[in-house]
Amino acid sequence: MALTVALAQVNPRVGDLSGNAAIVRNFSKKASELGASLVAFPEMVLTGYPIEDLCLRKSFQDASKKALNQLAKDLVLDGLKGLTVVVGYLDSTGEKASLGVPAGGPQNAAAVIRNGEVIAKYIKHHLPNYGVFDEYRYFVPGTENCSFEVEGVKVSLAICEDIWQDGGPVSQIAQLKSDLLIVINGSPYEYGKDDTRLQLVQKRAKEVNAPLAYVNMVGGQDELVFDGDSIVVNTDGSIANRASQFVEEIILFEVEPKKPISQSLVRKRSNDLEEVYQALVVGLRDYVLKNNMESVVLGLSGGIDSALVAAIAVDALGANNVYGVSMPSPYSSEHSVSDAKDLATRTGLNYRSVPIKPMFDAYQSSLSLKGLAEENLQARLRGMTLMAISNQEGHLVLATGNKSELAVGYSTIYGDAVGGFAPIKDVPKTLVWELSKWRNKQEGNPPIPESSITKEPSAELRPGQLDTDSLPDYEKLDPMINAYVEQDQGAFEMATKGIDKSLIEKVLKLIDQAEYKRRQYPPGTKISSKAFGRDRRQPITNSWRESL
Amino acid sequence: MALTVALAQVNPRVGDLSGNAAIVRNFSKKASELGASLVAFPEMVLTGYPIEDLCLRKSFQDASKKALNQLAKDLVLDGLKGLTVVVGYLDSTGEKASLGVPAGGPQNAAAVIRNGEVIAKYIKHHLPNYGVFDEYRYFVPGTENCSFEVEGVKVSLAICEDIWQDGGPVSQIAQLKSDLLIVINGSPYEYGKDDTRLQLVQKRAKEVNAPLAYVNMVGGQDELVFDGDSIVVNTDGSIANRASQFVEEIILFEVEPKKPISQSLVRKRSNDLEEVYQALVVGLRDYVLKNNMESVVLGLSGGIDSALVAAIAVDALGANNVYGVSMPSPYSSEHSVSDAKDLATRTGLNYRSVPIKPMFDAYQSSLSLKGLAEENLQARLRGMTLMAISNQEGHLVLATGNKSELAVGYSTIYGDAVGGFAPIKDVPKTLVWELSKWRNKQEGNPPIPESSITKEPSAELRPGQLDTDSLPDYEKLDPMINAYVEQDQGAFEMATKGIDKSLIEKVLKLIDQAEYKRRQYPPGTKISSKAFGRDRRQPITNSWRESL
Repeated sequence: MALTVALAQVNPRVGDLSGNAAIVRNFSKKASELGASLVAFPEMVLTGYPIEDLCLRKSFQDASKKALNQLAKDLVLDGLKGLTVVVGYLDSTGEKASLGVPAGGPQNAAAVIRNGEVIAKYIKHHLPNYGVFDEYRYFVPGTENCSFEVEGVKVSLAICEDIWQDGGPVSQIAQLKSDLLIVINGSPYEYGKDDTRLQLVQKRAKEVNAPLAYVNMVGGQDELVFDGDSIVVNTDGSIANRASQFVEEIILFEVEPKKPISQSLVRKRSNDLEEVYQALVVGLRDYVLKNNMESVVLGLSGGIDSALVAAIAVDALGANNVYGVSMPSPYSSEHSVSDAKDLATRTGLNYRSVPIKPMFDAYQSSLSLKGLAEENLQARLRGMTLMAISNQEGHLVLATGNKSELAVGYSTIYGDAVGGFAPIKDVPKTLVWELSKWRNKQEGNPPIPESSITKEPSAELRPGQLDTDSLPDYEKLDPMINAYVEQDQGAFEMATKGIDKSLIEKVLKLIDQAEYKRRQYPPGTKISSKAFGRDRRQPITNSWRESL
Repeated sequence: MALTVALAQVNPRVGDLSGNAAIVRNFSKKASELGASLVAFPEMVLTGYPIEDLCLRKSFQDASKKALNQLAKDLVLDGLKGLTVVVGYLDSTGEKASLGVPAGGPQNAAAVIRNGEVIAKYIKHHLPNYGVFDEYRYFVPGTENCSFEVEGVKVSLAICEDIWQDGGPVSQIAQLKSDLLIVINGSPYEYGKDDTRLQLVQKRAKEVNAPLAYVNMVGGQDELVFDGDSIVVNTDGSIANRASQFVEEIILFEVEPKKPISQSLVRKRSNDLEEVYQALVVGLRDYVLKNNMESVVLGLSGGIDSALVAAIAVDALGANNVYGVSMPSPYSSEHSVSDAKDLATRTGLNYRSVPIKPMFDAYQSSLSLKGLAEENLQARLRGMTLMAISNQEGHLVLATGNKSELAVGYSTIYGDAVGGFAPIKDVPKTLVWELSKWRNKQEGNPPIPESSITKEPSAELRPGQLDTDSLPDYEKLDPMINAYVEQDQGAFEMATKGIDKSLIEKVLKLIDQAEYKRRQYPPGTKISSKAFGRDRRQPITNSWRESL
């Protein structure tokens, strides 16, 4: 007799306890209808993830525990009495706080529900505290193992980071001689991470000498996007199942003690560009919808950044929910307006033009600004125009800046940096071009005007201005940003790789000095391990720089 | 023979290795001239504190270790060969990273220098990871004790959090039977914290059965301000020395084994209002100077917030470095201009007026904004004006918002929230009034116009507008913000304290929804444990709220 197990790769919403419980009930029903006796949901599916300081509120801890008990009862009402359901939720020790451990003793937990009751519990052992993770700051770790039986099959549990640590609970779990290890996860998407994940899962299956079922969440939450990619591997590392990326899905498999799991559904992987594009679409869509909004507005400069953001927004929300505004100044080229119009026609987004000359003249007659102050003024007049339209009509403003310009501070704070969400803020300029070309090659009418892809990048804030007046070519700049920011390489290390010394000094200075702007930049989907924002923490006042 | 010990309460600068080494040399010389054979400096004095992600750079770790060895040599050149010097710095294990422990194994360390060499080392055991601290994220903890002898006196070392943990290294140090425990600290100022600190130091001195010398840094670093308040207590808890708050200072005392330290210098404590005001002045001054700027510009509305910020700025930087701009609109009252002028006259700051009507008309003829969009437009026209003046003339823009309006979102993003630093962003409105009254009672001409203190708060963005149209009285609001934000109380808990239920629902909703604005707010001096900003981490998308 084989046990049928379902992994439910779902999209919860932070704080929405009743909505998330409804998702669990809905997918439990589906799993049961598909013949499953056991269904597993992602890490902290009941609360959403990551909940940050919310976990420190006793009232939220209590609400999470109450929601778990209610869920157990509701599953019985749903006629799912015999189904075994594994859900992640927020528990707490209930003990008083001690220094270093926050009040209330919050715990990242998993519950096993059957017959209207919680029949087993597991508390996460290893709490990641790097990159986007701050779990050691929040949670009290667990120390116990957890296993339970379903139809004669012995199942053990672990949560996410537990299997990323060598010598972690995996070695203890191996002692338990389980027939299946289920790992529930909230593992955010990162460029290229799916390969690492598969290798890890294969390695751990061998170590515990049992098949391993890895279930991950999908969907955007603030700056993170979860890609799903749930996997079932056999003891020998062979892939039995693999779910899609970025969509809700159930995968089903059959477990019999001592026998390998037969291969059923194994979805094809997306290629790297497709994967990043999907992450950006899902990240934007969920940010807008989970904030109870419907539509977005953005400035269309005719350039590649705003064109790519418009294409992503149209794919995420539909053209009728995207509002583009051309805001030409006396320094704008003719193609900046014609390319913006062309983009609007290709995508079908709502288009209007608001020239900024009258506002520019009003400011200049009061303040007579020159140079950089005059350039920034134009960017800010545009930012204000977008915010005014947003306030008047209720659209979320999208900032269209990319990672390269954000890194070196080549943007105007309160100008083009204005927005509620910055979809491509973690996408380097060279990748902006690649993604645009990739998107244009997909089925249907190419959304992005060819001329936006091929023209020389320019902020058009003074006559004849080009990005290369102030910055090295993006083909040179992007690898330097990667080396310094993502790899934490120093100036000397970069110099040994043949990069010009004066260029290193210039670029590192720009990156160090732009910290203040980045701290006030709107959130945006992260696709790399050291995206700017909360997970890269730099002092604003820092006088250290290596000199070569 | 008694040993003369000096505690050097100094103001280092993050990343400025050579500048900080110069401070150590300078104060070591002074200490030696005063007769000291041993001088102790604060935690991480060589690198400044907190250095955040800088510690992950191998090149910075290497630079810190190199700076330490150079310092040892330079002290000999300074003729201080025999002086024993205790300094905090960044060390590293040099090992490879493992998951959960960042690359390079950075360590929060103390070195004991004598005769041009490091004669002993101590690595911090307990790494705080709450509130403003993220040390467990960064550092690899130490496990060893450290003691050394100077002129027959046995001295042990600990770093900051080590003594905040019960059962920490303190119990091991007690075994060492030292004649003196030196604790070096980077302990930021917090309203009322000096009392807690004294009690803790007294308790630990008893536990280790030795006098305890606590040396802390002073000065502002980004959002933190360190208040000094270095203390020497005897085994019985009696205070032998206590330094001033917020200024660099050396305190000197004599240690003889088995004998109590005689009382010498014990500075009087500031009262609570004086202490907060000093923290705000020092926080602003160091933010400006450590960012290599000299002057600030701010909007003067005639209201109490901008008046208090102007007074703080004048006390921090001198009136000639403060630029105030009145920006009246057609909705501005007459007193908004006259009170602003009066403030300028009283303080001597540089004053000008830039009416915003021409810019307002230019926008309105293009966009015909109504309601909130029209109100926000005015605030944004002012923000842009200040940024334009900043870009043109080189002053740092100060945002004048207080904690109460920031908490409930009663401010315009890209409008009055514009700025490089927000001096009173952690000061609730009721405390703004108290501080203003306190400042006006000090020696000299009262800087703040009486009418700014007594008038009803208004944003003046529509005719007859008052804050109380949208918000409860600040006397009611501020305790609610304190309960919900600082104490993490829930709605039910607040309701049991007699607060009206509909008011709780309204205010909690406002606070939850304002998260997005707060995330884009400029940095500002923190005076409380859960100031908004990086140390209070909320999901932007959060649909959870208790309903009563």
